[in-house]
Amino acid sequence: MSGSSIPAAAGEERPLLDVHAFATPNSVKVPIALEELGLPYTLHGVNVRQGAQKTPEFLALNPNGKVPVLVDRTVEDGPFVLTESAAILVYLAEKTGRLLPGGGVARARVFEQLFFHASGLSPAFGQSGFFQRFAAEPQPIAIERFSGEAKRTLGVLDGVLANRPFVAGEAFTIADIAHFGWLWRRAFAGVSFDDTPNVARWYEAIAARPAVRRGIARVEALVPQG
Amino acid sequence: MSGSSIPAAAGEERPLLDVHAFATPNSVKVPIALEELGLPYTLHGVNVRQGAQKTPEFLALNPNGKVPVLVDRTVEDGPFVLTESAAILVYLAEKTGRLLPGGGVARARVFEQLFFHASGLSPAFGQSGFFQRFAAEPQPIAIERFSGEAKRTLGVLDGVLANRPFVAGEAFTIADIAHFGWLWRRAFAGVSFDDTPNVARWYEAIAARPAVRRGIARVEALVPQG
Repeated sequence: MSGSSIPAAAGEERPLLDVHAFATPNSVKVPIALEELGLPYTLHGVNVRQGAQKTPEFLALNPNGKVPVLVDRTVEDGPFVLTESAAILVYLAEKTGRLLPGGGVARARVFEQLFFHASGLSPAFGQSGFFQRFAAEPQPIAIERFSGEAKRTLGVLDGVLANRPFVAGEAFTIADIAHFGWLWRRAFAGVSFDDTPNVARWYEAIAARPAVRRGIARVEALVPQG
Repeated sequence: MSGSSIPAAAGEERPLLDVHAFATPNSVKVPIALEELGLPYTLHGVNVRQGAQKTPEFLALNPNGKVPVLVDRTVEDGPFVLTESAAILVYLAEKTGRLLPGGGVARARVFEQLFFHASGLSPAFGQSGFFQRFAAEPQPIAIERFSGEAKRTLGVLDGVLANRPFVAGEAFTIADIAHFGWLWRRAFAGVSFDDTPNVARWYEAIAARPAVRRGIARVEALVPQG
């Protein structure tokens, strides 16, 4: 949403893609996609537990104060700074011609799932976790509302996966990566797969992909130990 | 997300697109896009104030129990049923080659705003309205959290519009239609444009478009009078 202060590449060998992220449900989606696509990138840690996403430096990169952010230094008149994890997934898929069908019903199903995740499952999981864990005082109606909505949206996804191997159809796409991010952090939302066998089967298959494991390992390495 | 019981066209003259919707922030986006694109459609009212989106008939159309839903009877092996307002906007834009740039930075900015709306502004506005108006008991932390987030995301959008005539750049796109839906219903969220002059300027320009006025009039006509 704004210009970046990162200088353009000048002959050095570092990758032309930078990702600013942390070990969060939305962050992990971008390294997973880059690993699946085989694109080299530099990962920069933004420690959201210490509020690093609200510093003036980071807000200059993303005025919305959220990770992840992609900086693409291959773009003419760049660097090009892009926010919103799902917008980054679409951008990378279209840049490479992979993980997103080129047209028709199959393509529309990917967008349907990307937006169901972004507007439905993702905010329900996030608010469910917040009100169960972080609210300064108990808010029983809010807890019930969001934990109920987290379970309901997971049930909707289970119905989708009853008829398809992947969330948008027969092929692995960026929509699987999007849903995976929050389901990887389902414990935060207080959600399990006990009542959603189709989601459980799908999750195991996604989590076993080598590129997914590499993407997770890279964001987990950003968290300070000790 | 499922099949539809609407029979395929058989020589009759009714439009080949059906929209199931009501006078809601997400519903209005689809008629506005169809009016902008000049595509004929039949609008079917789903009275969400009476819970019509949770009936078995509607859940067969959209298991997520949300309006709007598009049914496209021009698709081979159709009818094709598509949910999620923003996914419908992308589908219609790609079907017609309009309201969405074909590539590059300009296209990525549209998706950035579509997902900022879907995951940020839209849920903040919706929850802000719910906790101010509908919660059975006051939830002060929830009210403060969501009304604050509604104002914050509106401020982020104001910053975006400080440098651009439209939310994704120099041209009117489906991202303007997406943001417009919730800003049209900003009173529900308890939000005004008093502190966001760029949003106010942009809103007036969008609201004055003839196609936008026609789309609004059509969904408002779905609300029973009396």
